[in-house]
Amino acid sequence: MRKVSIIGAGMTKFGERWDKGIPELIAEAGVRALVDANLSGEEIQAVYGGTMAAGRLVGQEHIGALLADAMGLNPLPSVRVEAACASGGVALRQAYLSVASGMYDIVVVGGVEKMTDVSTGDATIALAGAGDIEWEFFSGATFPALYALIARRHMTEFGTTEEQLAAVAVKNHENGSHNEFAQFQNKITIDQVLNSKPIADPLKILDCSPITDGAAAVVLASSDIAKKYTDTPIEIIGSAQASDTLALHDRESLTSLKAARVAAENAYKQAKVTPKDINLAEVHDCFTIAEVLAIEDLGFFPKGKGGIATLEGETALNSKISINTSGGLKACGHPVGATGVKQAAEITWQLRGEAGKRQVDNATIGLTHNIGGSGATAVVHIMKRAD
Amino acid sequence: MRKVSIIGAGMTKFGERWDKGIPELIAEAGVRALVDANLSGEEIQAVYGGTMAAGRLVGQEHIGALLADAMGLNPLPSVRVEAACASGGVALRQAYLSVASGMYDIVVVGGVEKMTDVSTGDATIALAGAGDIEWEFFSGATFPALYALIARRHMTEFGTTEEQLAAVAVKNHENGSHNEFAQFQNKITIDQVLNSKPIADPLKILDCSPITDGAAAVVLASSDIAKKYTDTPIEIIGSAQASDTLALHDRESLTSLKAARVAAENAYKQAKVTPKDINLAEVHDCFTIAEVLAIEDLGFFPKGKGGIATLEGETALNSKISINTSGGLKACGHPVGATGVKQAAEITWQLRGEAGKRQVDNATIGLTHNIGGSGATAVVHIMKRAD
Repeated sequence: MRKVSIIGAGMTKFGERWDKGIPELIAEAGVRALVDANLSGEEIQAVYGGTMAAGRLVGQEHIGALLADAMGLNPLPSVRVEAACASGGVALRQAYLSVASGMYDIVVVGGVEKMTDVSTGDATIALAGAGDIEWEFFSGATFPALYALIARRHMTEFGTTEEQLAAVAVKNHENGSHNEFAQFQNKITIDQVLNSKPIADPLKILDCSPITDGAAAVVLASSDIAKKYTDTPIEIIGSAQASDTLALHDRESLTSLKAARVAAENAYKQAKVTPKDINLAEVHDCFTIAEVLAIEDLGFFPKGKGGIATLEGETALNSKISINTSGGLKACGHPVGATGVKQAAEITWQLRGEAGKRQVDNATIGLTHNIGGSGATAVVHIMKRAD
Repeated sequence: MRKVSIIGAGMTKFGERWDKGIPELIAEAGVRALVDANLSGEEIQAVYGGTMAAGRLVGQEHIGALLADAMGLNPLPSVRVEAACASGGVALRQAYLSVASGMYDIVVVGGVEKMTDVSTGDATIALAGAGDIEWEFFSGATFPALYALIARRHMTEFGTTEEQLAAVAVKNHENGSHNEFAQFQNKITIDQVLNSKPIADPLKILDCSPITDGAAAVVLASSDIAKKYTDTPIEIIGSAQASDTLALHDRESLTSLKAARVAAENAYKQAKVTPKDINLAEVHDCFTIAEVLAIEDLGFFPKGKGGIATLEGETALNSKISINTSGGLKACGHPVGATGVKQAAEITWQLRGEAGKRQVDNATIGLTHNIGGSGATAVVHIMKRAD
């Protein structure tokens, strides 16, 4: 296995992008990543892409070929992967494996989703395909309902409060206010979250990530040639993925995602680091409770203490550990296939020291945590700025 | 890069499988492949799966996690890839890369599609997502229409006849009559094809592969440990994939699929063989004209001579080269995500000498050719029986 580094990153503005379709979004993000990597495009040997529900949302499948076509990269092999909301992270990992294997030296990986061409109701139905449709959706459980069950159980077991959950959203909007690509760049207060429209008790609208259009891309290279293209290659020192049951009712626990714990454990092992070595992490906050689970499952805080830690500011920018400096899914927006790739782009910019007003001081090691559905897929990557 | 072998293969009966859903189909094929490979399941380290349009056809995405769940393989990493009708072949290639890279020693790769839960019209709309929906489908061009354009152009340029196209279907039904897993096991005549219902001139219904439910699976292992599990490992000696424009009107030619030519060239190069060394091939005959293009693009016959060669019996079982001994997509059926994996299963059984009445004599080297859409993705694998 060869070492692999990120040598370029790019993304579109996330939001209601009614001006662009999937090909245009991916071209915009892809070209930015290529320019950032000082590549003309000829050096690239393969394309990987993540998207969840383009078939359902806009009628278009065969997204791998579309990616290569839109970026002018035919006849390169192009592979679309789908793992619900973890599609981007799984695409990144497949791209990583293709370079680590020695098959390719340079590949580009993109993530994209176009969600606002349909009604919010239709988008919610498409997203329900990330869970077990026969046993969950057919019984009426949409994703906010599944995460509400998780939140309620976490409150019962550990005394987590609605105020603590709200603190996740407040912190992520604060970070997002410094991110020009974020869908929401406004700051919010705990009172605003607590008084926002109820969605699935105890989750309010400001506990939920939005429906979003957007794309992101990163360029990977074998570490031994990465310095030819950039002075600051970001090495992927850990990459792991794990699965769990699709349906929530089959799980051992509602208050911890086993797939996330397994993926994290394997990624830490490969990277030879512990949770204490991580300076910053982009975690999957599709709902505020999901970030609480994430920072516990990743070992940053003891189980049950994620909510209080957030309320006390221990996950804010330049605190104990900087969580979701990009604004997370909550403020940045969540074009599902793009999210996992955007997380890698944010860590890249942070470890290079290019994150402007949201820069983490002395950032050396970063982590991404991307979850599919209610936790049936988890992908964890650990990145380090090469010395 | 390590060498990789197929050590087990299994599939379900293809057809109208109203008795089973996606989880049950994949479990049936997966368990057969595991039993065939003499595995209990504990030795497996990752899962790969191909499916095209489960989101559109049955509302279920997140198929990677579903595969692992259905086969009892949690918490293994499980990756769904989608490349329209080449989803199975691309999944096989990603699984191959994951073993070749040294990341895993043993992986299982499955392909599945459940297409008969919706009307034929809705299935046709879902399949249209394999082409360029904005420029082809929105203008009314479904897949039979796109391949009809290709057929008409091939006739104009090379004098290919409807009778020659019909000979493809007749030969594949002949082969399929010896395959217990085939959707259609009846023999047909050229007259029956020519007099069957018109679909998109010059293609008739018996020129078209059917709408099908089904699943297939193969188990891959690093070649250095393959002999522990089977006396007859089948080594993958070439694996290549290429892309082309999604829309037909952007292509250089209508009578040859460039992506197939590029993929074939790269696979031959890696395998260090020429088209003359291939004893048998499973090629992508979604329509009869597609098989004609395939046997030309793969170099088995000169461009323009594929139709006449088929009519003269040069692609029949144990002729010059045995094409689609399984019955192909035409007779076996075409559950799109399963097809590419089923092709690999057929080559495995043939190279082992286990294909019964459809056995190719002295089969040593076989090839699979899996096409996405009208040719925007092509995947070619070359397999050899290990000495």
